[in-house]
Formats: sequence, C-alpha cells, structure tokens
Amino acid sequence: MIPTVEWKNGVVRLLDQSRLPEHVEFLDCRDYRAVADAIRELKVRGAPAIGVTAALGVALGAQAVSATEFPAFAQALMPICDHLAVTRPTAVNLFWAIDRMKKKLASLSAQAVPAVKAALLAEAQAILDEDIALCKAMGKHGAELIANGQTVLTHCNAGALATAGYGTALGVIRAAWEQGKKIQVIADETRPVLQGARLTAWELMQDKIPVTLITDNMAGSLMRQGKIQLCVVGADRIAANGDVANKIGTYSVAVLAKAHGIPFYVAAPYSTIDLKTKTGADIPIEQRNSLEVTTIHGSHPIAPAGVAVYNPAFDVTPAELITGIITERGVFKPSELAKQFAS
Amino acid sequence: MIPTVEWKNGVVRLLDQSRLPEHVEFLDCRDYRAVADAIRELKVRGAPAIGVTAALGVALGAQAVSATEFPAFAQALMPICDHLAVTRPTAVNLFWAIDRMKKKLASLSAQAVPAVKAALLAEAQAILDEDIALCKAMGKHGAELIANGQTVLTHCNAGALATAGYGTALGVIRAAWEQGKKIQVIADETRPVLQGARLTAWELMQDKIPVTLITDNMAGSLMRQGKIQLCVVGADRIAANGDVANKIGTYSVAVLAKAHGIPFYVAAPYSTIDLKTKTGADIPIEQRNSLEVTTIHGSHPIAPAGVAVYNPAFDVTPAELITGIITERGVFKPSELAKQFAS
Repeated sequence: MIPTVEWKNGVVRLLDQSRLPEHVEFLDCRDYRAVADAIRELKVRGAPAIGVTAALGVALGAQAVSATEFPAFAQALMPICDHLAVTRPTAVNLFWAIDRMKKKLASLSAQAVPAVKAALLAEAQAILDEDIALCKAMGKHGAELIANGQTVLTHCNAGALATAGYGTALGVIRAAWEQGKKIQVIADETRPVLQGARLTAWELMQDKIPVTLITDNMAGSLMRQGKIQLCVVGADRIAANGDVANKIGTYSVAVLAKAHGIPFYVAAPYSTIDLKTKTGADIPIEQRNSLEVTTIHGSHPIAPAGVAVYNPAFDVTPAELITGIITERGVFKPSELAKQFAS
Repeated sequence: MIPTVEWKNGVVRLLDQSRLPEHVEFLDCRDYRAVADAIRELKVRGAPAIGVTAALGVALGAQAVSATEFPAFAQALMPICDHLAVTRPTAVNLFWAIDRMKKKLASLSAQAVPAVKAALLAEAQAILDEDIALCKAMGKHGAELIANGQTVLTHCNAGALATAGYGTALGVIRAAWEQGKKIQVIADETRPVLQGARLTAWELMQDKIPVTLITDNMAGSLMRQGKIQLCVVGADRIAANGDVANKIGTYSVAVLAKAHGIPFYVAAPYSTIDLKTKTGADIPIEQRNSLEVTTIHGSHPIAPAGVAVYNPAFDVTPAELITGIITERGVFKPSELAKQFAS
C-alpha cells in the first residue's frame, strides 16, 4: 500500500491527495510551514492523517530549532505548534496530536537538545505506527458487523488515505473483505471536494474491493430499493454525548439510513473523541472557499460567476441517529463513549 | 426573458442549455432529427420544455414531408413522431405532446396538405403558449404557500429553462417574488449534470432573486439548522396514485423534509400527470452514461478510469412524502389528483 504520510530522509513525505486519482505524486515537506500548507490545502486530509502529519510537522520543526538549551528550545517550538494547529478547526485529532507532542516535550526537560529532537521524532513516529495498529483493531471489531453478501455505503474517504494506513471506515470494510466476505461498496462521490470519487473509489480499486460510485443524491433512492444494508463513515470529532462531526453530507446519510431501517456506524480512533466538547453544537465547523463549489479543481467553472455559496466542510450527526461507534476497544453505543474513554 | 424554445423563421430555435452558464448560445434545428438529438443530449431539458420541443419537432418534420395526399402525409409523419418519442423515457410530457399532435393530425384528414402543415405548426405553437399560461397559473396558486421572509429549497431546474417560459417550481418562487415577498432560494447544485448550479442559479440571478448555491449533500444540515422553511420541485411524471418521478435526489430531499417537518411541494402542469401509470413503480427510469458522473462536461475526469457507476437520471418520491401538488387548477393532495384530472 502507498504510504499516506511518512518520515523519509529528514523530510515529511506526503502523497499529494489533491492530485489523485489522475496523478500519484509525492510532496516532500522540508519545513513545518510546508506541512501546515499541505494540511490547509487538503494535500493531506482525513482526521487521523491530519493528526499524524501535524505530529511529524512538529518533529520536523524541532529538528531545525537552533537553540542549544532546553528552555529556549521549548519556547521556540511553541509557535511551530501554534502554526500547525490553526490549519483546520474541526478535526480534533490535529489538536490531540500536537498536545501529545507538547506533553512529550515537557517530559524531556532533563535531556540535552539533540536527544530531545530525537525523542520528538520517535514520538511522532509512534503516533503514526499506533494509528495503523488502531485502524487494524477497529477493522477487526467492525468487520463483525458486516455479513457476507452485504452492500455497504460509505461517504467521503475514511480510508488508508485518511489515516497513516488501513483506514477507519474503509479499514472495517477492508477487514471484512480480508475475512473472505463477498461484499460490495457504494461510494458517495462527496461533493464538493469529491473525496469519495477521487480517493475512496481509487483506494478500493487498488485493493480490488468491488466499488460502485454514485453522486451523493442517489443514496436515498438506493436505500429505498433495498440495495444498501449498512452504512459506515469516519469522524472528524466526536463529542462527549456521542454527536459526530464528519464530512458534509454525513448527516443526510444518517437521516436516510434511519428512515430506511439501515444501521449507521461511525468508525474512529480514541483520538477523535473529545470529551471536552459536550455536544455537537459546540464543535466548530470550518467554512471553506466557495470555489470548491463553483469550480472543479479550482479552475473549471460549473456555476455562474458571483453566485452566493454556502460551503461548510462538515456537519453534525446527532447521537440518536448512530447505531454504534466502532473504536479500537470495541463497538459502543454513542451514549457509552464518555464512560468507556474517560481517562 | 430569453426564450427556451421557439419557432423562428422556419426552424426550431433552442437555447443550448448544455453550454450555460458560461455561454448563452442558440441552436437552430433545421430538421426533426436535430430536434431529437437536442433532446437526447440535454441541450433542451425539463419535462414541459421537452414536450413543447417535441411538438415543434413534429411540426418541423411535417413541413418537410413531400406527400401531397393526406393518407401518405399522415403515414410519413408516424416515423417522425416515433423518432422524437424514443429520445427520453421518463418525462411523460414528451409522449403527451406527441399524442396531442397525432390527435390534431387525425382531425385534419379532410383538409389539403398545406393547410394540415399550417395547422400542425399552429398546434405546436398553442402547446408552447399554453405552457407559459399554465406556469403562470401554477405560480399564482403556489405563491400563496410561501410566506414573506421564507427560504425555499429547490432541486434541479424546474424554471423558465425547463418550460416554454416562467417555470413550474421556479414559477411558484417567481410569482411569490413578484408579489413583493422577500424570499431566499437555496439551489441544490444537482449532480451529476448540475442543472441547479448551471441553470437554476443562473436563471434566478438574471431575475435578481436571492439565491445561494449548495452541494446536494448540504440540504439536510441546513434543514436541521432551521434555515429552510419550504421545498418545491418540478416533476417528470406523476402516477395516478400521486407518486412523483423527478430528478435524482428529489426523493432524498423529500425524506429529509419529512424528518424536519418542512412542507414538500411538487409543481407540475396537467400534462405531467399520467393516469395510465398506476404507481411510481411503473415509471421507467432512464439510466444515463457513466461519464456524467466520472467527468465534468464529458472531458474533465473526477474519478478513477474504469470505476463502476450507477447513474439513474430520476428517482421516485412516494405520495405520502408530498405535502401538495401545485397545478394550474390549484393545489391538491397527491391522493386527490386522479379525481381532479380524470378526463
């Protein structure tokens, strides 16, 4: 599998997802600002992948700090963390990963700066390695929910491309497939940025998992025809009450699933659960550039010039529409999350 | 207002809707085959506009028939009617308009061929003129349902561009606006062919009616936030039991509206009501080329080459999700239609 993000020869190497599926190209980020730009411009996206990338960005920034004493070194690292944190507001994994890097830093105050730099890089690498392991654990738990012969709808890309590897929602699908279950996937194209068409379809085709692409507005009709047995999506942030922020359109899928009696699951690692956010109403929703809606690839116009546009990147699905949340620890009802993950 | 379709100097002149909004271009069809091609290729679309265009196509074909005796003339006209009828399967107005032209022809058997040709053209022109009058009547009835200050969601384009002029769903919105009501419109972009982005947004901007463009998957989230007070869409065919076939995605909007307690209206002229079709299950649904989903404008790829695609042009919304059907005779519950329109 092509790595989404990795540390390679002193740079953060990203698969440039804004160029997929036409072009499989890598972007070598040589400083933390380039990492922040890549997150902001969706060259890397997906909540867990953003978290891993930000951690590597902190480690990359740390390598270049010239201070030789710990206090000056630690002080120099703070604006680097801040710069990476303001790239995107919704996915909590970003803040979680940066906080973890800060906690690691705080634990290293007795060490020499070269050792601190090495330890920060090791910590970022650990976050990356853990992310893959968590996805595989999620896949194992979630695959039990999918029966042989079922067709599964997914929205956006919660795949290997949205994580360090393997995926959350697609990890569940991948695990069911690896168990030998003959399943089919319906991929919502996921306007406006088309992560379903460009990334999910591509990723599943690479693995030879049968996938059919639809426009977002076809899901309801397919459900009514009995052609979808289960929905599984990722998450950008899960509030303490089980409300889930995820890619715009997720809420509509959940309402439609409920109306048709189809189970609706969310797959996400613990770093997505934000117990400090009480309900979905408290999750900040990023508004993105109207060009995402009015053009394709920023240049090809598909709407009249100057039209007013509403372009939230995410919506909130209330806990009561969610059948279960698939985590590395097992599958829980949204209402059980706070109890399970209280630290 | 720019005419969608008209008879001009012996040709059928169409506004080429496949080129909007970047290019406002007209297509002069000099024979009935060109008219059929234009319908098939969505250069003219929208159920009432297709009906009017097909009637003009029959009239255009009639002018070129060389037979000088009525029986031979009538015989020559049948394959022309058939050629126009097989362009698209779902919108019943197409078959209704062609049937009306055939009935007119049958009533003219006592006349000389030049008089028959003139009468057929007059009949097609009458269908066009009536279509505009029906839209204005629908607008008058429907506008009563919209209160000052409301925001109205519409899907696809059921506007002046989908009719000979004024529009069905957009006719209702236009009439409310002309009454001085301060309303806002939310236009679903309507993938895959983007009639909402390309046509509805353009048409409303021409009339300075406030419109905000969204991707189809945003409607549910806006409803949950209380930002939509009413939905109104057009129809391609209405079955005797009140089930409605309309652009793919209409069904999802109706389910979402129901879940949020938002009234959902369909605006359509009597030629859309097909009492011979008992329920929505009996309406043929056109499957279109996968390139509509995998590319923009047929050339700009947005999905992996070779991906499997499902691309129905329409879906069926069951009568129980429809608050009312707005017709030129008034607003009816779907269950009352058969009684109201039995001839």
